[in-house]
Amino acid sequence: MKIGVLTIGNELTSGRIQDSNSAMIARAAQVQGWQVAGMMSVGDDAGAIRDALAYLLARAEAVIVTGGLGPTADDITTEAVARAFGLPLRQDRAVLDHVRSLFEKRRLVWTENNAKQALFPEGAEVIANPTGTAAGFALRREGRAVAVIPGVPAEADRMLREGVIPFLRDAFPGAALHVETATFKLFGIPEAAVDAAMADADLDSLGVAIGFYPNFPENHIVLTVREASAEAAEEKLREAGARVEARLGKHVFAKGQGTIQGNIASLMTDKRMTLAVAESCTGGLIADRLTDVPGSSVFFERGVVAYSNAAKTALLAVPESVIREEGAVSDRTARLMAEGARKLAGTDLGLAVTGIAGPSGGTEEKPVGTVHIALADGKTTFCRRHALRWDRRRNKIAASQAALVMLWRYLKGEVQDDG
Amino acid sequence: MKIGVLTIGNELTSGRIQDSNSAMIARAAQVQGWQVAGMMSVGDDAGAIRDALAYLLARAEAVIVTGGLGPTADDITTEAVARAFGLPLRQDRAVLDHVRSLFEKRRLVWTENNAKQALFPEGAEVIANPTGTAAGFALRREGRAVAVIPGVPAEADRMLREGVIPFLRDAFPGAALHVETATFKLFGIPEAAVDAAMADADLDSLGVAIGFYPNFPENHIVLTVREASAEAAEEKLREAGARVEARLGKHVFAKGQGTIQGNIASLMTDKRMTLAVAESCTGGLIADRLTDVPGSSVFFERGVVAYSNAAKTALLAVPESVIREEGAVSDRTARLMAEGARKLAGTDLGLAVTGIAGPSGGTEEKPVGTVHIALADGKTTFCRRHALRWDRRRNKIAASQAALVMLWRYLKGEVQDDG
Repeated sequence: MKIGVLTIGNELTSGRIQDSNSAMIARAAQVQGWQVAGMMSVGDDAGAIRDALAYLLARAEAVIVTGGLGPTADDITTEAVARAFGLPLRQDRAVLDHVRSLFEKRRLVWTENNAKQALFPEGAEVIANPTGTAAGFALRREGRAVAVIPGVPAEADRMLREGVIPFLRDAFPGAALHVETATFKLFGIPEAAVDAAMADADLDSLGVAIGFYPNFPENHIVLTVREASAEAAEEKLREAGARVEARLGKHVFAKGQGTIQGNIASLMTDKRMTLAVAESCTGGLIADRLTDVPGSSVFFERGVVAYSNAAKTALLAVPESVIREEGAVSDRTARLMAEGARKLAGTDLGLAVTGIAGPSGGTEEKPVGTVHIALADGKTTFCRRHALRWDRRRNKIAASQAALVMLWRYLKGEVQDDG
Repeated sequence: MKIGVLTIGNELTSGRIQDSNSAMIARAAQVQGWQVAGMMSVGDDAGAIRDALAYLLARAEAVIVTGGLGPTADDITTEAVARAFGLPLRQDRAVLDHVRSLFEKRRLVWTENNAKQALFPEGAEVIANPTGTAAGFALRREGRAVAVIPGVPAEADRMLREGVIPFLRDAFPGAALHVETATFKLFGIPEAAVDAAMADADLDSLGVAIGFYPNFPENHIVLTVREASAEAAEEKLREAGARVEARLGKHVFAKGQGTIQGNIASLMTDKRMTLAVAESCTGGLIADRLTDVPGSSVFFERGVVAYSNAAKTALLAVPESVIREEGAVSDRTARLMAEGARKLAGTDLGLAVTGIAGPSGGTEEKPVGTVHIALADGKTTFCRRHALRWDRRRNKIAASQAALVMLWRYLKGEVQDDG
């Protein structure tokens, strides 16, 4: 089944509010196996609402509408929908009593315009609003359905799940499918190369859809399958996932809702290992990302943002002479930072980054984006040099990602020194 | 002038990504005095793109399109737009060379599908992409215009401002008014209170529009004025700005494109002062934000993320006995962290944060969200306690913001100890 989404309100077309209802409805539709044919947003204007409804109803069996159900003069959605279907408005006594009782309970002054919220197109089914005053409604006409709920996201979310989805499943019983998705998160490979690697996987004939989503500095692959049974969906997804792994497995650092910092936290915690981080150009971002994980204090002992050379010497025991002779941005300094962090913190591992984030500070030999990342475990110190080519913020993000991926590979027993 | 907005991508119609480009474009249109007739989102489907374009072009003089310009097979926007206008595709040699050179610079492997990004409808004007590989384009046909830019928000934002808006102002010169905007960034006051404080400012009769935009943990006020002359616009904006300052000036920490870290960097640099930061619950976020400012190495000497108690003692000289007796999250520990950071780094100032970010670790006396922020200058140490009530990430963000605002107020001579 195809559905259309129509969100209504001048606050949307002026950009004052970013529409979150469309994406929420699309996600809910996806789960039902319904395809979104189109999403539209228009202002509080009867003509625009009528045209948009007609456009979507020509392309979808059902349209879900949010917004414009309040009591004020600019809330015209109910009237516009009724007019689009040539239906008169009727007052719903039960809804009117409910709205009045809410006003009494909340000790609000009743004004007559609130009675507007009890008017619905003739023949519509009322969708209750458990948390607000604006009830929704749903209509069936000539094999098509329209459901209308308020624009307040929390109210829309609940009424969508409890009212609209059951109404539409009931109206279109043949349309329910089992939908399963799988997400693979990749780093260190550009989008076009991801695409090229998957070109011969032939997921089409398997009936699995593949999507590529760049999410700097990561690239995500999302597999989607719709089947009559959950088992069939899961089996196809397993086979498709194996094809992704076979082609791109070495670039996959997380799946589903996983993150690189979350995976690191799990491995560090399982292995009962501890970590100290020494940062220069990433400026604390690695520590910030690791400490976003609840419970990270179990393995994250300390971080040092050694921006000045004096700090590298005082907090990480990097000899002044090394910085003077080889530079703060060098393989040798990175190694000594990782070793010093580990030693002074008394942790199992030390992770260090030194580099030039830009926009200035680069030289011919060490251009902006030059980054050295080192990992010390007391026996070996691994170090890699990277050449990043972004702006300051993105260089910081990419460098932090490269460092976290290096640590994660080490914890999985994969890291090697090639730099 | 009326415009239409069309955002393209299966990631939108599947709900995987929440569209932020539509609202961004709507705000930009608002600033130009252009009305948004409708906003649509469709999947990567040629028929859906053609129909949506036709619908919007019937209702607006210009349509701004984002998404589907990448190199992969599902990126079909350029071809769909060309077909909708009956135009053949032509390769732009300069764009091809540019994309190739980006690949070389970034040492990425060239695959032939990337050449797709140099194809444009015949007669289209190329819109440069300063930060990515996907260039945009703009077309004029029969009194209507279409501009197409990538879906990546950071790229779309810049290309909208630098390419699309100038193109459309040029294409529709009669629609151009002098539009001026002013942004005020506030912290420490909720949106409803901002709204209430401005209720009596009567900007309406001045002809200045006011918008309120929550941007966690900040609240932004945007004033917009459209006038026939730049002078008239500026004068009205000055008067309206004075009314904002009179009511909310003490909450305003930055204006326009300014940021709290940028303002701190300017003040620190002007005063030739240096800073050391000691963080616990913010986990490096304060250091990360300060080092986002180019040139921050002039004043930012070091940061310490003292997650463990041992690190607080070793790197900040906080006596073990204080942590044992008063706790790691306490007024006394925060003060000693700030003083220790300053002293050990030899900087003018020490800024410290200790707290409980959550979700666990809270007690009755010190619930999740308890944060102590201290600032030491060698003569006085200021300290404030905050009670935050968000999730882990937002508690980190809000605590870092409160610390930066405290430092900024101090640099302006405003800070006082009230905590």
